[in-house]
Amino acid sequence: MDATEVITRPIGSVERLVRLAASDMAGVDSLIMGRMDSPVPVIPALAEHLIVAGGKRLRPLLTVAAARLARGQASTVANGLPEDGFLKLAAAVEFIHTATLLHDDVVDGSTLRRGKVAAHLIWGGASSVLVGDFLFARSFELMVETGSLRALNILAHASSVIAEGEVLQLTRAHDLALDQDTYLEIIKAKTAELFAAAAEAGAVVSGASEIDIQALRAYGLNLGLAFQLTDDALDYGGKTETLGKNAGDDFREGKATLPLLLAMARTGAAETAFWERTVGRLDQTDADFLRARDLILSTGALDASLDLAVDYAETAKAALAVFPNNDWRQALEALADFSVSRAA
Amino acid sequence: MDATEVITRPIGSVERLVRLAASDMAGVDSLIMGRMDSPVPVIPALAEHLIVAGGKRLRPLLTVAAARLARGQASTVANGLPEDGFLKLAAAVEFIHTATLLHDDVVDGSTLRRGKVAAHLIWGGASSVLVGDFLFARSFELMVETGSLRALNILAHASSVIAEGEVLQLTRAHDLALDQDTYLEIIKAKTAELFAAAAEAGAVVSGASEIDIQALRAYGLNLGLAFQLTDDALDYGGKTETLGKNAGDDFREGKATLPLLLAMARTGAAETAFWERTVGRLDQTDADFLRARDLILSTGALDASLDLAVDYAETAKAALAVFPNNDWRQALEALADFSVSRAA
Repeated sequence: MDATEVITRPIGSVERLVRLAASDMAGVDSLIMGRMDSPVPVIPALAEHLIVAGGKRLRPLLTVAAARLARGQASTVANGLPEDGFLKLAAAVEFIHTATLLHDDVVDGSTLRRGKVAAHLIWGGASSVLVGDFLFARSFELMVETGSLRALNILAHASSVIAEGEVLQLTRAHDLALDQDTYLEIIKAKTAELFAAAAEAGAVVSGASEIDIQALRAYGLNLGLAFQLTDDALDYGGKTETLGKNAGDDFREGKATLPLLLAMARTGAAETAFWERTVGRLDQTDADFLRARDLILSTGALDASLDLAVDYAETAKAALAVFPNNDWRQALEALADFSVSRAA
Repeated sequence: MDATEVITRPIGSVERLVRLAASDMAGVDSLIMGRMDSPVPVIPALAEHLIVAGGKRLRPLLTVAAARLARGQASTVANGLPEDGFLKLAAAVEFIHTATLLHDDVVDGSTLRRGKVAAHLIWGGASSVLVGDFLFARSFELMVETGSLRALNILAHASSVIAEGEVLQLTRAHDLALDQDTYLEIIKAKTAELFAAAAEAGAVVSGASEIDIQALRAYGLNLGLAFQLTDDALDYGGKTETLGKNAGDDFREGKATLPLLLAMARTGAAETAFWERTVGRLDQTDADFLRARDLILSTGALDASLDLAVDYAETAKAALAVFPNNDWRQALEALADFSVSRAA
């Protein structure tokens, strides 16, 4: 192993992918800004508030990376589909994601998103719901332009699965008896499915082989699980400034995420009354959050959640073995490492 | 004119179309029930509450009728697309409509829909928003199965226009200076566009000629305008039992619909304070609604609104002149007459 090889080894970073995809993402951003426009001023204003605040654009980055990685392999580039189809698809993916964020924040009553005041607190819940609907519809208009019914189907299906996952989470939110499998089913549906679909659809519009399409879908799915598990852990281990949302939100909403579920199981009968009051009936003080956090740390529930996230990140990386070890693959590997290193 | 001809003349009725489309609509209903299913029990329960309550299924009826009318004319039936594509499209149209109703009722805080308690009052606003999202996504899955990117584009575009119309209405809701053109723009976007798209898409998947497609779109658009104008008039002229929603809802929400706008213009300075208080600031009593209704009736604002609705219904019927005078055309003509006769 020489020095160059050490330097090019994947590091836990999203920056590597961001740099590699910079010119493609400039095209995606331009599509995003153009297509969220409307003669009704509230629409671009509200959409811009969330979209320009940015986040890392992880999902459209996945679409771009999958398309670029698959394109290097595909025998017939783009299959007669428009050359810029993957950029439109990436913009559509970001619109779907933004629409779900707008609706989630209304549903959850969240006050902070991407480090800014949640849109529904500025423009009202009604506007947030309707602008979400607008972006969702626009995403399908963009997808139609790619000419790929298969890509459309992948993202339409992902959208219905996301909604199912959100409803499942809503109905089981305060359920202290939620098991780990149901928790994983929820985060698979509400988060990992869109990561999977974003990568899969990107591969599809690049004319990728079935094996490559499924490899990229598997990468996205496992990355999404790693990402959400880490996110749920950060809600008990992170600071508000690095999260871009309020630490402790999940606890205050009584969301049964894995760190909480494991801690409840591990503390046993001694803490039953505490969990039933704070999570089951949402009868809480600020001190209760600190106590819950202590229990989650001291029982090893936080570490166990993060360990599981690392397992999924490794599975994501392994799925990329079908591709040559090029820049795009390495950038996706670095992204998988990044997804579980945000707590550091 | 002999007796038979008199009997077969269009009467203001939706029943004629309902009877003609009965077997097709049985197929549509079966698709609707099948595709709103989900392992998450809240989803079919909430969707069924609204969908089984029924309404008249006007929009999917339009898709079916347009497809049947166009198919009689088309040189190449169905253009190589699946034979049952128009049934799937009709189910998709009903899903889009149901999704918008669920979101509207949350946005407006409506308490009654189709004669039943609004879903968000039973399952909560969050579930209504998310089940709306689910149905919207499922509608696109159904559309993909029709294999028609053009039909998909028509309904995706209609969906973004609907959301735009809803936001426009929301932001201009209490605007006493709303002009008739902006009001018409709002009802065109939030109601007539889906009627137009439902008919247009039905024609498209039947391999209709461009002339026939545009004729059916024009029929749907004008029918939708007639329908919404009548609906807005009924809110001041109808009884709660016949409406299936609460008479006076628009007034209580301060919605600037045409009867109100015309009455405000016609009552002039004498009533400015009344309108500003009741509509502008939503400071109202039950007696205020009765007074508003009296003013809307006495100034002729209600009649003027209904007259305009009749004009649109006539334009809708005239658009059908390109088709032979068969059962489907006559049933659509009867539907146009029905749309403006509900006040009777």
